[in-house]
Amino acid sequence: MRRHRPRSSDPHHPRRPRWRRDAPAPRAAPDGAARLSAGAAILYGWHTVKAALENPARRIRHLYATANAARRLAEDGVALPVQPDVVRPDAIARRLGPDAVHNGLLAEADALPSPELEQIEPAGLVLVLDQITDPHNVGAILRTAAAFGVKAVVITARHSPDATGVLAKSASGALEYVPIVTVQNLARALATLRERGYYLVGLDSTGERDLREASLRAPLALVLGAEGKGLRQLTRASCDEVARLELPGRMKTLNVSNAAALALYVASERAN
Amino acid sequence: MRRHRPRSSDPHHPRRPRWRRDAPAPRAAPDGAARLSAGAAILYGWHTVKAALENPARRIRHLYATANAARRLAEDGVALPVQPDVVRPDAIARRLGPDAVHNGLLAEADALPSPELEQIEPAGLVLVLDQITDPHNVGAILRTAAAFGVKAVVITARHSPDATGVLAKSASGALEYVPIVTVQNLARALATLRERGYYLVGLDSTGERDLREASLRAPLALVLGAEGKGLRQLTRASCDEVARLELPGRMKTLNVSNAAALALYVASERAN
Repeated sequence: MRRHRPRSSDPHHPRRPRWRRDAPAPRAAPDGAARLSAGAAILYGWHTVKAALENPARRIRHLYATANAARRLAEDGVALPVQPDVVRPDAIARRLGPDAVHNGLLAEADALPSPELEQIEPAGLVLVLDQITDPHNVGAILRTAAAFGVKAVVITARHSPDATGVLAKSASGALEYVPIVTVQNLARALATLRERGYYLVGLDSTGERDLREASLRAPLALVLGAEGKGLRQLTRASCDEVARLELPGRMKTLNVSNAAALALYVASERAN
Repeated sequence: MRRHRPRSSDPHHPRRPRWRRDAPAPRAAPDGAARLSAGAAILYGWHTVKAALENPARRIRHLYATANAARRLAEDGVALPVQPDVVRPDAIARRLGPDAVHNGLLAEADALPSPELEQIEPAGLVLVLDQITDPHNVGAILRTAAAFGVKAVVITARHSPDATGVLAKSASGALEYVPIVTVQNLARALATLRERGYYLVGLDSTGERDLREASLRAPLALVLGAEGKGLRQLTRASCDEVARLELPGRMKTLNVSNAAALALYVASERAN
């Protein structure tokens, strides 16, 4: 397989390191994110990279694949937007750290554009995350949001993880399916959603009534806070109501991605 | 606070390193597990350690706490089974690695005993995990299982993570609430459950019908496989039926702990 190498004058490919084929990639910070310019994403793992390759809106800057992974992509009929660099598995592992399950695929890509709230059709469900910082959790939430056909996930510009690395891996391709709307001010975003017809339901263990008894109607925005901290006061005050998930057992709180999954299930049964 | 140090002849405290108070703990493998003898657990984080301290069945070998955490425990009225070693936060951080959120608490404890299947009252729900290896996921599943009042979680002795470290932290105290039954042979365990009256429902994306339409009746065993691999063939054949979670969106699979949460929700609405 021939290497496809953009000219060095290409403004989209500034200072990409010139790895030799089958040579180890230079060691980077875990997740590989530290060496990237703003607006770039590191994507690894079979589902994550395959979904990105199949997304016409995703610009792939560079693709590293093991011979096996490249063959699997060809067998699956995935058209490659760039010629891959065929590398050994340990070259990818060295780039990502020993714990990353990369399945022989690593892509450097442009981050996807973040749409404006006004571009989201006011229908169905949107999910709003109030400063949830853990990339595993945000990735799992995006994946579940895509499974429930959520129209968009709204996150804050500050105190949210970037859509790259561990988050992208945990999302398992969902980055390509669910628009992420990044906002500077969450209270203002919630006001915009209300103006556009959304009913705003915050989730919090101190909520007044069980989510199943809340007034769930589309278009609906479900608002989730970080574990421990919960919803910030202004976020809470901006919701039409705050509901809790009634749990029958001894443990009264859930991992936030598990809570999001249950909330989406309950809401999609009622508000779609 | 005075240090409580068991005599060196105490067979339960073999060769514990003699950290000086406020001195850095010796560096260990991430998770701190490598230095432990079999049958021991490293517990860290506020909820995880507090629940362990409050569990009379959990034998705490040693407790390391920051001055702040020790004060918070006292304020919460938590009776300490051992005198804590008061240490600086970085001493705990060095032991656990930089990413562990320890909240100033680290306990070395005995692992909890694993009951036999025959000791679990045949009622309500049990969860069976077929070689789910990721400790974050198994921890989150245990936490959600405790939130739904699951009677026991059955895991395989091989290809399951130990109930320590990251798993315990993700479980957020649930290790103290849900019995974990460790079995050598999962197919045999499923046969035992059936003999004891359980209805066995496997979850798999290739399942014949939606879980909401499955014959859910207590006592019910929900059987989950690992992401990607799913249920092993013998596990699948051992179930009374295999159901899927119908997902309305483009993504057709979920993170396994999110899938477990939805399955427990659906089942507990129907089979409790």
